[in-house]
Amino acid sequence: MNFNPVTPEILDVLRGIVGDDALSTAASELDLHARDQSHYAPHRAEVVVFPTTAQQIADILRAANDARIPVTPWGVGTGLEAGSIPLFGGISLSLERMAKIVAIHADDFQVTVQPGIGHKDLNAELARHGLFFPPDPGANASVGGMLANNAAGIRTVKYGASKDNVLQMQVALADGRLIRVGSRSVKQSAGYDLLHLFVGSEGTLGVITEATLKLVPVPAHISAVVAAFPTVSQAVETVVAVRGAGLDPAALEFVDAAHAVMLSQSDGVELSAHPHVFMEFHAAHNATLEAGLASVREICAEMGALNVRATTDTAERKKLWHARHHSYEIMVRSHPDKQFYIMDVAVPISAYPELIAYVEALTAERSIKAYMIGHAGDGNIHVEFPYATDAEDAKMKQANHDIVLKALALGGTCTGEHGVGVGKARYLREEHGEGLDVMRALKQTLDPNGILNPGKIFVAEESD
Amino acid sequence: MNFNPVTPEILDVLRGIVGDDALSTAASELDLHARDQSHYAPHRAEVVVFPTTAQQIADILRAANDARIPVTPWGVGTGLEAGSIPLFGGISLSLERMAKIVAIHADDFQVTVQPGIGHKDLNAELARHGLFFPPDPGANASVGGMLANNAAGIRTVKYGASKDNVLQMQVALADGRLIRVGSRSVKQSAGYDLLHLFVGSEGTLGVITEATLKLVPVPAHISAVVAAFPTVSQAVETVVAVRGAGLDPAALEFVDAAHAVMLSQSDGVELSAHPHVFMEFHAAHNATLEAGLASVREICAEMGALNVRATTDTAERKKLWHARHHSYEIMVRSHPDKQFYIMDVAVPISAYPELIAYVEALTAERSIKAYMIGHAGDGNIHVEFPYATDAEDAKMKQANHDIVLKALALGGTCTGEHGVGVGKARYLREEHGEGLDVMRALKQTLDPNGILNPGKIFVAEESD
Repeated sequence: MNFNPVTPEILDVLRGIVGDDALSTAASELDLHARDQSHYAPHRAEVVVFPTTAQQIADILRAANDARIPVTPWGVGTGLEAGSIPLFGGISLSLERMAKIVAIHADDFQVTVQPGIGHKDLNAELARHGLFFPPDPGANASVGGMLANNAAGIRTVKYGASKDNVLQMQVALADGRLIRVGSRSVKQSAGYDLLHLFVGSEGTLGVITEATLKLVPVPAHISAVVAAFPTVSQAVETVVAVRGAGLDPAALEFVDAAHAVMLSQSDGVELSAHPHVFMEFHAAHNATLEAGLASVREICAEMGALNVRATTDTAERKKLWHARHHSYEIMVRSHPDKQFYIMDVAVPISAYPELIAYVEALTAERSIKAYMIGHAGDGNIHVEFPYATDAEDAKMKQANHDIVLKALALGGTCTGEHGVGVGKARYLREEHGEGLDVMRALKQTLDPNGILNPGKIFVAEESD
Repeated sequence: MNFNPVTPEILDVLRGIVGDDALSTAASELDLHARDQSHYAPHRAEVVVFPTTAQQIADILRAANDARIPVTPWGVGTGLEAGSIPLFGGISLSLERMAKIVAIHADDFQVTVQPGIGHKDLNAELARHGLFFPPDPGANASVGGMLANNAAGIRTVKYGASKDNVLQMQVALADGRLIRVGSRSVKQSAGYDLLHLFVGSEGTLGVITEATLKLVPVPAHISAVVAAFPTVSQAVETVVAVRGAGLDPAALEFVDAAHAVMLSQSDGVELSAHPHVFMEFHAAHNATLEAGLASVREICAEMGALNVRATTDTAERKKLWHARHHSYEIMVRSHPDKQFYIMDVAVPISAYPELIAYVEALTAERSIKAYMIGHAGDGNIHVEFPYATDAEDAKMKQANHDIVLKALALGGTCTGEHGVGVGKARYLREEHGEGLDVMRALKQTLDPNGILNPGKIFVAEESD
């Protein structure tokens, strides 16, 4: 790709758009916007800009497009696939100063926000209206970043991923046009679904400048269940059975035996050395939960559960789920000298036991330390590799490669919720075949100069 | 648009692809495929072809593209916006002989089907597995047609529209490529969402040749509620309150007073001359329904309901819902000398009372006979106009125009579930602004010769 450097003249143009205080070339800012939470090497932009309006973003893109300067949007940097790393330098487009709630449409169960707001901050505010935005990727990711990556998390099994919880967006295009996609009407059949074309496009087709999100009422009653099983397949069959019984879980999580052991040892959590299933149920009435829990207990018993703990009590529920909610921190704390590589694949749920068995066998054969934790209700698994040495790094990368190919062979996807970014680009041909050529054609149509987040989604060698 | 006629040579090419028995130029076949269930004038294709495989469809498109001959896909002709009418002649691509279930993935709650299967036929088969495909547009529409139009129906408030209930499709492109879009993994973040680009594109970007649908367990328990209210706004406030209480209705329908009167007079249904709300709830346990019904009764009472009938009994439920399920037939039967025009708009639910009041006032002022029936839980309303004379036709068209503009002014959409087809094309500029130019650019990228369903979605005058 042939880009131009950010010259003093370009800096002047950018200052003219955002003002003197909303632009930085300081090393500290460049470094802060050079990395995300992944293992990928950092790379500096040449300038970080901090727009405060959609029009400023559009104007920045128009100027960058005219000057052939790459633009990489930056939310809060919680990505795991290098999506916000400015691989080709140019402009880091930080959305930190666009973190406002624009409007709460309480009667419509909708909220309109700027893209830089953290979803946890948003939910803290929405709680006062008895509403919440369900997707929860863990970290306090920005809503814009969540939409750009189609982030999901533990509540997806009931409420869907980010793409299922957005109705309308304003998007700035590479040529500086600002368009609205989707509708505040929850039903719309009026032409092509541009909304979902931009969701998950990782900033390579346009920059999300505003979004209207779907909300749901905060559940009046919540129950939690934690169950241990002798084998992975019994745990996963339980997952299938709970879904099949129409019990509509709000979370249906799998934790492997190694992870359970690690959690127990380092945090005093009472988990036996077995595969575990964590469940959560939301309901408007306690009677619904009680009836549901009776069914869940029956299913767990039928599937040979070793023990089942269930509660509708809030304090008890938080205690039960503590290990799952804090599993990442606990893992990091219990491996003080390691870095972590968290990989993400998903398969049809019927293939989940085979995928898990494959990961278990592979890591055992190759003596690779790994923990499995996954959104089992969605067929989504994360394998977490602690590593320190080059040898561990190499083994882990080979394991990642083999697990991705296995997931694809099982009819799955190379990424369920972390996005393509850099690391998954080379698997898109295998996953999409000629569909990848259609994606490239759309990219060419909407961003002919390739200025938008270059180096992501598409493999560089193939892009000429 | 400059298309070529279907010559004897082209017919030979088509025969070479589908065989002698799968092609017809008989007047009866041309007429059968010249109209849908709408008020739009019929138009004949020059030939109807009946492919039986995806590859045949791809080969037909490649041949038609090379020869610049338009291709209009045809499911079963239940559309209401002329989507399947071959306005420019050419080839009517009937999917009638591709109506098989390809595979039932019961453990994954998925089914893979050919596009020509009727959703009612599909659900009859799926019932044996305790599963169903929720979108229900009323008529026995083909699944391919439902996906092409993003059809919805009465269960959308809980289960979503067609776009929310499909995971993967095979699509034939204008140039004869066959691609797969989406994934059998319920979670996917691997590149652009091509799946949703083709869903709702009304056959103008490609032809759906196979689809894997999301299924849900048949609910073990169902309840029904029918309530009458003094005013429309009380009825609609009830709708908002039921959703806000987290009661998760599976249907939340509005019937206006005129419609209630008509249903009572012609079918002996016991409905008073008031606005009515019809509700349905699905649950895994009866306890959930009973608790929910108690809440619903409370909400209805608070909102001033004149009477509330509720039941969990199957026979009683069917009786209560009879009027709603058969409202179209009852309307047709009670107006033997009329044709019907059914219009479709949707708005954010907070704007629903204003939209309904606008339609009431407009039809009263202009002495237009009209019935309102709507998926209130989605902010979706259908105004049904019986008509016979040219004068009635003209008044109705003007009313339609004014109601669409009102819906757009209220932040809504010109079509919630019927699609754009012919009649709504002229409103897309108003609804999408420059987004319409992006849609045109995508059309140009994927169908540069414009052979796929020409005359739909885009206004002809603007297409040069």
